[in-house]
Amino acid sequence: MTTARNLLDRLNLRSPIIQAPMAGVSTPELAAAVSNAGGLGSLGLGASGADGARQMLRQTRALTDHAINANVFCHRPARADVTRQARWLDRLTPEFARFDATPPAKLAETYTSFLADDAMLDMLTEERPAVVSFHFGLPDATRIAALKQRGILLLASATSLAEARACAAAGIDAIVAQGWEAGGHRGCFDENAPDAQLGTFALTRLLVQALELPVIAAGGIMDGAGIRAALDLGAVAAQLGTAFIACDETSANAAYRHALASEAAQNTVMTRAISGRPARCLSNRFTAWSAEVPDAEVPDYPITYDAGKALNAAATAAGEPGYGAQWAGQGAPLARPMPASRLMEVLKQELAAG
Amino acid sequence: MTTARNLLDRLNLRSPIIQAPMAGVSTPELAAAVSNAGGLGSLGLGASGADGARQMLRQTRALTDHAINANVFCHRPARADVTRQARWLDRLTPEFARFDATPPAKLAETYTSFLADDAMLDMLTEERPAVVSFHFGLPDATRIAALKQRGILLLASATSLAEARACAAAGIDAIVAQGWEAGGHRGCFDENAPDAQLGTFALTRLLVQALELPVIAAGGIMDGAGIRAALDLGAVAAQLGTAFIACDETSANAAYRHALASEAAQNTVMTRAISGRPARCLSNRFTAWSAEVPDAEVPDYPITYDAGKALNAAATAAGEPGYGAQWAGQGAPLARPMPASRLMEVLKQELAAG
Repeated sequence: MTTARNLLDRLNLRSPIIQAPMAGVSTPELAAAVSNAGGLGSLGLGASGADGARQMLRQTRALTDHAINANVFCHRPARADVTRQARWLDRLTPEFARFDATPPAKLAETYTSFLADDAMLDMLTEERPAVVSFHFGLPDATRIAALKQRGILLLASATSLAEARACAAAGIDAIVAQGWEAGGHRGCFDENAPDAQLGTFALTRLLVQALELPVIAAGGIMDGAGIRAALDLGAVAAQLGTAFIACDETSANAAYRHALASEAAQNTVMTRAISGRPARCLSNRFTAWSAEVPDAEVPDYPITYDAGKALNAAATAAGEPGYGAQWAGQGAPLARPMPASRLMEVLKQELAAG
Repeated sequence: MTTARNLLDRLNLRSPIIQAPMAGVSTPELAAAVSNAGGLGSLGLGASGADGARQMLRQTRALTDHAINANVFCHRPARADVTRQARWLDRLTPEFARFDATPPAKLAETYTSFLADDAMLDMLTEERPAVVSFHFGLPDATRIAALKQRGILLLASATSLAEARACAAAGIDAIVAQGWEAGGHRGCFDENAPDAQLGTFALTRLLVQALELPVIAAGGIMDGAGIRAALDLGAVAAQLGTAFIACDETSANAAYRHALASEAAQNTVMTRAISGRPARCLSNRFTAWSAEVPDAEVPDYPITYDAGKALNAAATAAGEPGYGAQWAGQGAPLARPMPASRLMEVLKQELAAG
């Protein structure tokens, strides 16, 4: 049994702060800055192949000697459905037409689930990051055993007590309790199952009370007061994503940073129309369009994302930034643009001041 | 400007704990027990006429000398829509038929909004509870002035920054930040406007950062750790509803208590099909039925509630308890049945132990 105390000790964390993996936004520079400042930096590798992921891990290692968390996506591999995908492209055609563009002729599963990616497993057991974390579900027992055998500490996201219990049963070392507030992809194991939409406050407390495992709170945590509140709820650490998006070291583009600093940050929307899985995005033209789309018509993740990225590329080329996957949590208005090393100092000061 | 400190001082609260008003569940005995224990007890008067409300206030006053909060509903008065109401009754007919019953021939606005209830205003200015709180919106400036002139402290629920700013502009003394986790009726001013579904964690922090007014956190708070977390987020007090439902002093019936203590508590559902406004209910047969109902077909609040209560009566008469308005928040699995005075002691001990 991993206790709360030995989780932080084992990772040699001086602060109970985990930077959320945020595939597409996190960078080796961001993760290293957070880890060097005493937190746990993370790399979102879910959209990378094994080679690209290995390169990111090595780049990070060149910048820090501290623990790093490598995050992979464990969704059920996409099921191609040619009819649904063709209808989806039809539905998107008028949006492409706004930018004198046409949808791609067909859609692909643009990246592979960790459940089916042996090369990624081999890479992780070779490169041996201190932590590997799972999102969207859990890999099989063989993969979990292979990682644990290499001394890698395992985290997994849970949005409900049932998912958290599945994590515990699989031998996961600590649970990331991802509340409804959280930005980006919701970690629910089955995106078509009923979702109780548990907020960070309720979910953290429910999991802490029900489980022996350490719980890491995530969703809506933006500052030292939020971290302290998470610890009071019994979490061993807080995971912050949106708080880091505006940091200098991320790969968020100018339009994303601009939207985050704008009135749009006041409203985020949970939508599955951008990627195929529910994810929380800054309110923009894409989320407005998505409001009318029935869930049942959305192709599987990440096939839908292939279309969403093509639409965003067409819109961006025409000067319209409002179709980006501008993932953000409900705390978005509290984001503070600054270098990550500075933000870590601010967070630690705020936490100590409480 | 009411500061955080003088809000508690003015009410002579020894603990930063407010019992949520919960119309239909709260009683004079509950409110008095909470106030006598150093918190702020509340009466939910939204579904009562002025005479019934006066009686509840007087009964409470007979049980405590401490401050009491009288809560009223400030929804836009229902607009009758005979066609929509007839269709609604058609839709409900098969549910009534399960219990060999038929829907009522027509539906009524079973209680009056405070916006249109002069008798309630007169009663409140006469009886002069220490606190009056508003849900679903705000009354006009004349009503607010009349209450303030009598030295009554005013609270109002807000689910967004825009609503909280409206409260501040209207001269409200403190804001109840009602997060997505919260049970019962969601306090949104306009139930047809887009809802950002802000969780307690994010909403509390956003309002504390943006407003000068004291903020009271509500939603998913079930114990001393939760109260401490709310205070960490900058709230001046925590409002707990679901934590009190199972107390001996409430009017919750046996079926409601049983559901709260059962596996059903793991899943709550936000639905407008029971009453006409979004409200969070324990997952039961009524919420399962409501999942298929488009919002646009639901008659206005509280006209819809007239039908919902009739259906529950028919079901209950036939031995089926699953159509009750079993309001509860996402923290429901953490509810603890005991006398309210004992629960207050437990909460205070847990809060002090942090």
